[in-house]
Amino acid sequence: MSFQLSALAKLTGSRLEGDDCLINNIAEVSSANAGDIAFISSPAYADFLSVTKASALIIKAEFLDACPVPALVSDNPRLAYAKIANLLYPARKSETGVSADAIVAELASIDESASIAAGAVISAGASIGAGTQIGAGSVIEEDAVIGSNTRISANVTVGYGCKVGSDCIIHSGVVLGADGFGFVKDGDSYLKIPQVGNVHIGNKVEIGANTTIDRGALENTVIGNGVKLDNQIQIAHGVSIGDNTVISAATAIAGSTHIGSGCLIGGLVGIVEHLTITDNVIITGRTMVTRSILQSGSYSSSTPMDTTENWRKNSARFRRLDELAKRVARLEKTNKSTD
Amino acid sequence: MSFQLSALAKLTGSRLEGDDCLINNIAEVSSANAGDIAFISSPAYADFLSVTKASALIIKAEFLDACPVPALVSDNPRLAYAKIANLLYPARKSETGVSADAIVAELASIDESASIAAGAVISAGASIGAGTQIGAGSVIEEDAVIGSNTRISANVTVGYGCKVGSDCIIHSGVVLGADGFGFVKDGDSYLKIPQVGNVHIGNKVEIGANTTIDRGALENTVIGNGVKLDNQIQIAHGVSIGDNTVISAATAIAGSTHIGSGCLIGGLVGIVEHLTITDNVIITGRTMVTRSILQSGSYSSSTPMDTTENWRKNSARFRRLDELAKRVARLEKTNKSTD
Amino acid sequence: MSFQLSALAKLTGSRLEGDDCLINNIAEVSSANAGDIAFISSPAYADFLSVTKASALIIKAEFLDACPVPALVSDNPRLAYAKIANLLYPARKSETGVSADAIVAELASIDESASIAAGAVISAGASIGAGTQIGAGSVIEEDAVIGSNTRISANVTVGYGCKVGSDCIIHSGVVLGADGFGFVKDGDSYLKIPQVGNVHIGNKVEIGANTTIDRGALENTVIGNGVKLDNQIQIAHGVSIGDNTVISAATAIAGSTHIGSGCLIGGLVGIVEHLTITDNVIITGRTMVTRSILQSGSYSSSTPMDTTENWRKNSARFRRLDELAKRVARLEKTNKSTD
Repeated sequence: MSFQLSALAKLTGSRLEGDDCLINNIAEVSSANAGDIAFISSPAYADFLSVTKASALIIKAEFLDACPVPALVSDNPRLAYAKIANLLYPARKSETGVSADAIVAELASIDESASIAAGAVISAGASIGAGTQIGAGSVIEEDAVIGSNTRISANVTVGYGCKVGSDCIIHSGVVLGADGFGFVKDGDSYLKIPQVGNVHIGNKVEIGANTTIDRGALENTVIGNGVKLDNQIQIAHGVSIGDNTVISAATAIAGSTHIGSGCLIGGLVGIVEHLTITDNVIITGRTMVTRSILQSGSYSSSTPMDTTENWRKNSARFRRLDELAKRVARLEKTNKSTD
Repeated sequence: MSFQLSALAKLTGSRLEGDDCLINNIAEVSSANAGDIAFISSPAYADFLSVTKASALIIKAEFLDACPVPALVSDNPRLAYAKIANLLYPARKSETGVSADAIVAELASIDESASIAAGAVISAGASIGAGTQIGAGSVIEEDAVIGSNTRISANVTVGYGCKVGSDCIIHSGVVLGADGFGFVKDGDSYLKIPQVGNVHIGNKVEIGANTTIDRGALENTVIGNGVKLDNQIQIAHGVSIGDNTVISAATAIAGSTHIGSGCLIGGLVGIVEHLTITDNVIITGRTMVTRSILQSGSYSSSTPMDTTENWRKNSARFRRLDELAKRVARLEKTNKSTD
Repeated sequence: MSFQLSALAKLTGSRLEGDDCLINNIAEVSSANAGDIAFISSPAYADFLSVTKASALIIKAEFLDACPVPALVSDNPRLAYAKIANLLYPARKSETGVSADAIVAELASIDESASIAAGAVISAGASIGAGTQIGAGSVIEEDAVIGSNTRISANVTVGYGCKVGSDCIIHSGVVLGADGFGFVKDGDSYLKIPQVGNVHIGNKVEIGANTTIDRGALENTVIGNGVKLDNQIQIAHGVSIGDNTVISAATAIAGSTHIGSGCLIGGLVGIVEHLTITDNVIITGRTMVTRSILQSGSYSSSTPMDTTENWRKNSARFRRLDELAKRVARLEKTNKSTD
């Protein structure tokens, strides 16, 4: 596919500066070639302006003078770029229909425009919406409901009774609806508490590879519309996540915690159980959240990296920090009394 | 299914106070309706007593006066609740027998009361016990042995020669018996050390979604009876875990570490290799365990969350903590000499 | 299989001391029996010398006097042991050919010496090299290329267009080529940025169970030759890792970070996006890397474990560390002025 630069200006609501030309690909500004369009959004990349081989660039107005090729001028070059990239790289579509090598229960309901790949297993009572694609080796258990135009990659498991909305992308290895982790001590051992809730995923949700979302103990685990989850995230039973919240890889959220909408949660974050995080909260990578956050803003924990040699010394002092603080208090007292 | 409240009192060893009635479901006290039973174990939920629509509550004696509906009085309402929940929600049972769409090697041994789902692969020499269910897309490799009444969910991998006991639940995406991570430097590159041990899982073990347990290098990796592992836990080669130890999500345990019985290990914990953790140890979430724990008790590390602004200031000081301690020592010396 | 000890001396370039004998297995020095060979590389195990039942030991010269059985004397007993272990335990080989229960697209290219297990799905345009084994339930998507003598275990997903080299081992649950995590804010919600790069894995790479490596946004995600990745590692889009770098379990590396060759990265490490880590860097377990490392050496962060009681006190002081440092500075000023 190729498009006139002027058409891309229209698509993205940006201003064309320079001659019109034909664009057929996207690229990094540093490695772009003829036919490519690239974008520059930060001054850090401005050095590439003079040497780029791209046919056109998407830039902020401030870079226009230095730009040697036709340009789309935009307040948000990254967003304009994303729109053009989606035009040039539309979502991959599998062949419509049920593969002869898929295993579909008689009592499953498959829209005729859906696509079920080889080796997929669709159980009785499951429902697959229009335009939805189920990847090879994926298992959709009993009574699970998948909306329309959702893409489920290979080797995904959607547990019985769980619901996934429309326009979602679920990457490989995701497990939705495993039992929540609930036990009660009974003598020396533990008795399992049945997990009878489900998982409900909204629309336009993306879930990264090998992320796990458990079914609720009694209430459902609920993921709002537009939520984006990276790879290897763990979401425990009864958690709810508000619309358009974004969570980076390897973060774990414990049971019955409620997270607001519009939050940005970094990678490797831990959030303990039964907390409330309000809307529009930022949590930086590796933070350990042990209390509710009721005021929007940015929150952190963790300690800074150092050479192992320095770190060892400082880290050893941490174990006597309370004592150190008390020694300082004593010194202050002595100092005062000698004033 | 529905049960007389008096029968539930008998089942749970609790005392019925008020009229007998019919119970057909479990619910949260806050959202219960007619026919439901709910429980209150902490004073935090006592406010719901006056407004609950549940037909009955499981409570401690102290809440009896405030309870407006029939009650089961118990010292451990949560345990009583779990017993009733297990009665009302017995474990799901798949149809007995081998699905026409399962792939079973001729030399595999499948008990006639076992259930093998569509798309499951059972290799030669594998043995599946009575009443055990193997989920869709799961792979049981050569010579693996699964006991009786164990439930293996969809898309699980049990490696060759590994053993899983009876009455276990293995959730989707679990990998048992991948090679341990063992290499030895050979010039600039690394030579693999063959991993010739297996994984042995005891009885009544539950393993959460996408958890991985590696086979031992020489000795087996051993998980004791009644152990409960949450999602996305990593257990390296040669680890052993004692009976009834419970581990929360996203924790990683390095090679040849031995953990006692009755331990409670939080989420996101790291435990380095070749350590010994004794029985009945509690390790709080995100702790980094770098030395053996030979005395039972509770252990922690990590640092507290703060606003990013405050955290940045404090965190910067951490890098000079050793220097700060030395400065305090100098001040103390000066103070003494001026006494 | 059994081998003369003298032949093993030749294989490993070590010196035979004592009588020749027949070796047919490897074992830990503590549990070895007749016919076994074991190794001792650290003085910590020297106590076992006098009591071992092994037929032979691999030792450093310093332990020779105390060794009661025939010995292979080597500067690197662990390496000699690994070579012998590889001889006694050659890599498992599946039957050559395509299983009747595999699902192979007509337009896939499968070398006749490759092995495709039951339930595996090979898509159109995929290419499987000589001697390569694809495990049960694994999915090799369109146009993916797998080199020769590579072993892909059960339930692996290799995304469309991705490349895996020769002599690799990819363990179960691995996902290569899921979309990178790239979005741009568009009003209140997020627009997906198409991820059009691939994943390129070099030769002699091992990738642990449930590890995920995302495809690049524009450039490829690249894993060098000889890289060893443990279980449950997350590698984001556009990351590159140099040859022979070794990474332990549960580490997460964010987008577009470039890691050199010969690095040793511990478990539970986090590395943020757009960093450069030079060659031969050691990063200890649980470190949070938030800036580039341009000088080889060892780096750390995290705080030490303590009893929960002590930790609580010290941890609380961390939140006032900046204030504490300022108080010390004031004391120093006062002290000076009173000098």
